Amino acid sequence: MRIITSKQEMQQLAKDNKCSGKSIGFVPTMGYLHEGHLTLVKEARTDNDIIIMSIFVNPLQFGPGEDFEAYPRNSERDTKLAQEAGVDILFMPSAKNMYTNERSTGMTVLKRTDTLCGVNRPGHFDGVVTVLSKLFNIVMPDRAYFGLKDAQQFAVVSGLVEDIDFPVELVPVQTVREPSGLAVSSRNVYLTDEEREQAPALYTSLRRAEELIKNGETNITFILDSVRDYLVTHTHAVIDYVELLTFPQLEKVSAPHGKMIIAAAIKFSKARLIDNIIIDV
Amino acid sequence: MRIITSKQEMQQLAKDNKCSGKSIGFVPTMGYLHEGHLTLVKEARTDNDIIIMSIFVNPLQFGPGEDFEAYPRNSERDTKLAQEAGVDILFMPSAKNMYTNERSTGMTVLKRTDTLCGVNRPGHFDGVVTVLSKLFNIVMPDRAYFGLKDAQQFAVVSGLVEDIDFPVELVPVQTVREPSGLAVSSRNVYLTDEEREQAPALYTSLRRAEELIKNGETNITFILDSVRDYLVTHTHAVIDYVELLTFPQLEKVSAPHGKMIIAAAIKFSKARLIDNIIIDV
Repeated sequence: MRIITSKQEMQQLAKDNKCSGKSIGFVPTMGYLHEGHLTLVKEARTDNDIIIMSIFVNPLQFGPGEDFEAYPRNSERDTKLAQEAGVDILFMPSAKNMYTNERSTGMTVLKRTDTLCGVNRPGHFDGVVTVLSKLFNIVMPDRAYFGLKDAQQFAVVSGLVEDIDFPVELVPVQTVREPSGLAVSSRNVYLTDEEREQAPALYTSLRRAEELIKNGETNITFILDSVRDYLVTHTHAVIDYVELLTFPQLEKVSAPHGKMIIAAAIKFSKARLIDNIIIDV
Repeated sequence: MRIITSKQEMQQLAKDNKCSGKSIGFVPTMGYLHEGHLTLVKEARTDNDIIIMSIFVNPLQFGPGEDFEAYPRNSERDTKLAQEAGVDILFMPSAKNMYTNERSTGMTVLKRTDTLCGVNRPGHFDGVVTVLSKLFNIVMPDRAYFGLKDAQQFAVVSGLVEDIDFPVELVPVQTVREPSGLAVSSRNVYLTDEEREQAPALYTSLRRAEELIKNGETNITFILDSVRDYLVTHTHAVIDYVELLTFPQLEKVSAPHGKMIIAAAIKFSKARLIDNIIIDV
């Protein structure tokens, strides 16, 4: 595995690979790798000649109140895990290398962000589309792999690729789950023993909503309330949101129809968990 | 010469060419081709295996008061001229093909637009960087050619490429001039006989400022006034602006230093003319 820290060197290498007809699979991350990331690499391995993973904690997607400095980093462990997973090129640029001058071009997300996690993170997705546009241009991937755990991010990036015509195929990858159904997340370590036992209820509540919809339930309020009731009964967590939206447009639905996402976020004492299921009716 | 009207087909063809190791030179235009455009093709021919020209009157860069509908079009003549000039692929998409859905990603230019022609065209350069980002992704050029007549556009696009890391080299091409010094422009046909005789004074006035600077003049007001005085004495045109700015940042200079642009715009009865000289001290 080759480690590259300069975007100029990375872009030249990507160009050389394109010229020699090799396909590039890309897994963008902010590091602190877990099984979810490694599953993306595994998926990428099956379809591409070369796998490039980026590790870059992007300052632009952190708000003033959010703690960019405290975001967990462990590049030694990440490097080992990336190598074992089969990454060919690990791209780890510095913030100074990525954002050299005062920017003269701004990118903003106009849709798909006024709901779910976007509500409380103004500007977050602007930073996401900016850094991904840069990374797409630097890494020049044929395919880029995103976990569906952050389904809103996938929806926003789908909009970006469609709007700006990036020559990349986005590959959504199913959320990795523990046997209990709990989605794998770096934040799970913050759960107390009791909360850990309760946390799988999040996925169960969404599965129950999915069942209702598949069995023909059309009352949206009833469906969302069933999720809330289940969470209230089975956890001590505070519910942040429970939503049923079109996917990937993320617009309210009046009756279940077409491709939709049922998503929820709950807050335990120290960990905020999110999960979702994408349904096609 | 191949004519392509679908962005999907154009992107696939660009990918195929990249895979086979061929370099692509790109000349983006809004059509109604003149000698300036053909000079860009000539330049592109010397450096690249394949020349792609786009003709697309981009609705996004026209303001509400500006006449998108009335912009001159002549695709039959353009096709003939492009073929004669040595274009390999002529890309002429429809607005519907370029902008398929309601956009969820906005691009805005934060710098370099509050001066020169940008002052009176709010939103214009936002439309320019959006369409060029799309075209760069669709055409995938190694090099893109821009005339320096519209130096502000070149400055803004330089910022775009730097900020978003597009893997394209921008090639600035010197303004094509008539023997009198008058810059070639589609708008010159709107000049009366008398104005046509006066119009070369625009370039002459800028050349005089260049001479002053090269001879060590440091008083900016004196330099700009010399241009204004020359224009007032030698034409009946109304002066829109005369500016000396850093290039490509387009910031005010207090004393001549480094790379600068001296630019002016004047209005005759029916034609507004712009011109500039880039100076390195």
